[in-house]
Amino acid sequence: MENIKDYVEENKERFINELIELLKIPSVSADSAYAHDVISTAEAVKFSLEKAGCDFVELCETPGYPIVYAEKIIDKNLPTVLVYGHYDVQPADPIDLWTSPPFEPVIKTTDIHPEGAIFARGACDDKGQMYMHVKAFEYMIATNTLPCNVKFMIEGEEEVGSKSLSWFVERNHEKLANDVILISDTGMISNTQPSITTGLRGLSYVEVEVTGPNRDLHSGLYGGAVANPINILTKMIASLHDENNHITIPGFYDKVEELSDAERAEMAKAPFSLENYKKALDIDDVYGEKDYVTNERNSIRPTLDVNGIWGGYTGEGAKTVIASKAYAKISMRLVPNQDWEEITALFKKHFESIAPKSVKVVVKPHHGGQGYVTPIDSVGYRAANKAYTETFGVPAIPVRSGGSIPIVALFEKELKSKTILMGFGLDSDAIHSPNEHFGVFNYLKGIETIPLFYKYFTEMNK
Amino acid sequence: MENIKDYVEENKERFINELIELLKIPSVSADSAYAHDVISTAEAVKFSLEKAGCDFVELCETPGYPIVYAEKIIDKNLPTVLVYGHYDVQPADPIDLWTSPPFEPVIKTTDIHPEGAIFARGACDDKGQMYMHVKAFEYMIATNTLPCNVKFMIEGEEEVGSKSLSWFVERNHEKLANDVILISDTGMISNTQPSITTGLRGLSYVEVEVTGPNRDLHSGLYGGAVANPINILTKMIASLHDENNHITIPGFYDKVEELSDAERAEMAKAPFSLENYKKALDIDDVYGEKDYVTNERNSIRPTLDVNGIWGGYTGEGAKTVIASKAYAKISMRLVPNQDWEEITALFKKHFESIAPKSVKVVVKPHHGGQGYVTPIDSVGYRAANKAYTETFGVPAIPVRSGGSIPIVALFEKELKSKTILMGFGLDSDAIHSPNEHFGVFNYLKGIETIPLFYKYFTEMNK
Repeated sequence: MENIKDYVEENKERFINELIELLKIPSVSADSAYAHDVISTAEAVKFSLEKAGCDFVELCETPGYPIVYAEKIIDKNLPTVLVYGHYDVQPADPIDLWTSPPFEPVIKTTDIHPEGAIFARGACDDKGQMYMHVKAFEYMIATNTLPCNVKFMIEGEEEVGSKSLSWFVERNHEKLANDVILISDTGMISNTQPSITTGLRGLSYVEVEVTGPNRDLHSGLYGGAVANPINILTKMIASLHDENNHITIPGFYDKVEELSDAERAEMAKAPFSLENYKKALDIDDVYGEKDYVTNERNSIRPTLDVNGIWGGYTGEGAKTVIASKAYAKISMRLVPNQDWEEITALFKKHFESIAPKSVKVVVKPHHGGQGYVTPIDSVGYRAANKAYTETFGVPAIPVRSGGSIPIVALFEKELKSKTILMGFGLDSDAIHSPNEHFGVFNYLKGIETIPLFYKYFTEMNK
Repeated sequence: MENIKDYVEENKERFINELIELLKIPSVSADSAYAHDVISTAEAVKFSLEKAGCDFVELCETPGYPIVYAEKIIDKNLPTVLVYGHYDVQPADPIDLWTSPPFEPVIKTTDIHPEGAIFARGACDDKGQMYMHVKAFEYMIATNTLPCNVKFMIEGEEEVGSKSLSWFVERNHEKLANDVILISDTGMISNTQPSITTGLRGLSYVEVEVTGPNRDLHSGLYGGAVANPINILTKMIASLHDENNHITIPGFYDKVEELSDAERAEMAKAPFSLENYKKALDIDDVYGEKDYVTNERNSIRPTLDVNGIWGGYTGEGAKTVIASKAYAKISMRLVPNQDWEEITALFKKHFESIAPKSVKVVVKPHHGGQGYVTPIDSVGYRAANKAYTETFGVPAIPVRSGGSIPIVALFEKELKSKTILMGFGLDSDAIHSPNEHFGVFNYLKGIETIPLFYKYFTEMNK
């Protein structure tokens, strides 16, 4: 059988060019202006799976964007791996901060990526990491080395809450039946130190609207006499954290699991340089919850961040106006055991309760998802770790991620199977930011590592 | 001599149509996209003054938009009235709240304006009120009843701080020499109760920028670990008012004049219904500084209002991002004796001092102006009061306005003359808001009243 290293070496130009073509389609699920491009991307993914050798591929209609489903069943008695990924991407704005257009992929070298990185929205999250699985599958088919059954489920609404995916999964238990779910939509510590994400934070995302007077007012004639919705909104948001940066919403921490000193000591072993962290972000100091360190604040602790705020005159020059309305988008990252719907309700109740009588407040829940923790002694985890160890030369470290993949908890509930998060991205890849990129090394290393997971997972199941 | 009432009656259609033509030009000084329209408006005003009978008219170049200067000198020994007004307007946004396009004037009747009101940006502030003076002058020339000399100075940057006007006034003391300055850029209590504005608030307008990380970040990977500039900005702004809605900037109130109980009792006599006030704005409660009533909060007390705020993702849907930067436009209304430049410096010093080490803050002063109080025993005030009394049947009430006309204080300093604020607008005219309008009654009543001011001012000066 041909060696995967050689196969990647021979085909890497094509692998990169195929990904670049996929990245050119602006599949922004949050903005309906891109609806047509999101669909085109789904069709492109479907085509790539057919070409790679799946014997059944379809675009499954949903209440929202279609889900690409594909499968290759070689023997009902062999284990089945379900690969999940998403073909939609985050909005690209602020556009003007991109050094090259977000949907015109280019390869540039960086300090961390001397072999070059592909710069484009979605390069890492998640088109690049999802496409590694398509190419790894292509290899196993081409060399007749696929050791088990495989199913692909690639969705188009991950960046907006995966509503349609839940709808789809609930209705297709049989079709999606599997022994393990494999996802590459997370990161690893560095290109010399692989890691496997064992915990994810949940999410509650809301939008708030504060209304003062029924029309914009002249700030001279009315200033000081009526509630300014922007001033009120800032007061309300500011009050959501106390002086220790604890969140003040009653009941918010009730179900938060407190880690033991031993567990915290274990976490503290992961390589981390506060100086490099601050330098990379160009900040003089970090900022967060009292009594916790940076690596705890962004992984095992819940948070509340304003993701967007707007109101009044934001154009050029000056306008002396008191706006009628002010708005904010606010998201809370949750830890395992915090129920996102319960937290959303607590936020709504509290936020409405702190509004002064002089304004009207509306809280609109956007979407959310549960947190998740996976054991490190499962067959899937051990197979993944063995694969990483072989391609990187060192075993992977288990880490808790601060991010959310809302559907991981859903999979466990609906499909009763564990998810393995084999991420190949880096924190510095700027996902959700201008100049998102994915290292060529990481992309090819992923393609090289994934078939080994199939191999060991199948062997360990014998 | 033909009676002014008859003259207005005969020419009112033309008066209204001429104003409508002027209102069609979007002379938004705050937005450079309208630069060409601002210039066209200056030329239209120049033309109207020539046509009305000035014997010298010119567009005076400045570092910014031109100032329209015109004069009619009939006798060096007679007093000279300097009329000031502005031809620029506020931005029209939010456009979607206008019931008819802001620059396509239409006449509609309202409860307060049964004879109809002209709806357009600038209808009242200040094209409509400025143009009353052009038409009143036309009448005096046409009927050969101009009793004194008159000079016009109409600027194009009032809505953005009148920078070029200060530059112009400082350089043209001789040219602008006058015995009284007459301005219609304020309001009156109602169409049955005229009033003369005797006090104006000063203004300090700043823009603030808070920078956290050097790029937008994924709120899952970084949330809770780095300072979110939007959360920080809300905390900083919220801290600018204490629980009694006093402004917390050290030294802010040092020079604020406290009115005597007698003066406050006098103010309280002005007709005012809190119920109607709340009903008109559709608010359940007013909001402001403890121990002061609404009519004091918006006139004799200084204020701090956010006029605009923005940062992060403000588009459709959800984006889980921590923005790199957050911004706000903040203005402070000042009372007489508070120096706007000193207050701006105090704000800057304080705002920078409350920023946590984890963010960088920039405070950019926009513009400002001093407050002003005028005596009610001056010849100008008495002449204006007599004119109002004759056309409205009741004497005018002196009132303090919360608005700012930054250049009034400048005029007194540079030209050593008093300003009379003969306003004919109403608070309900929605200046600076969508659906700004100016009553046809008010427009024509102004044209009718102004010549009487010239008459009595000249007589009282004999």
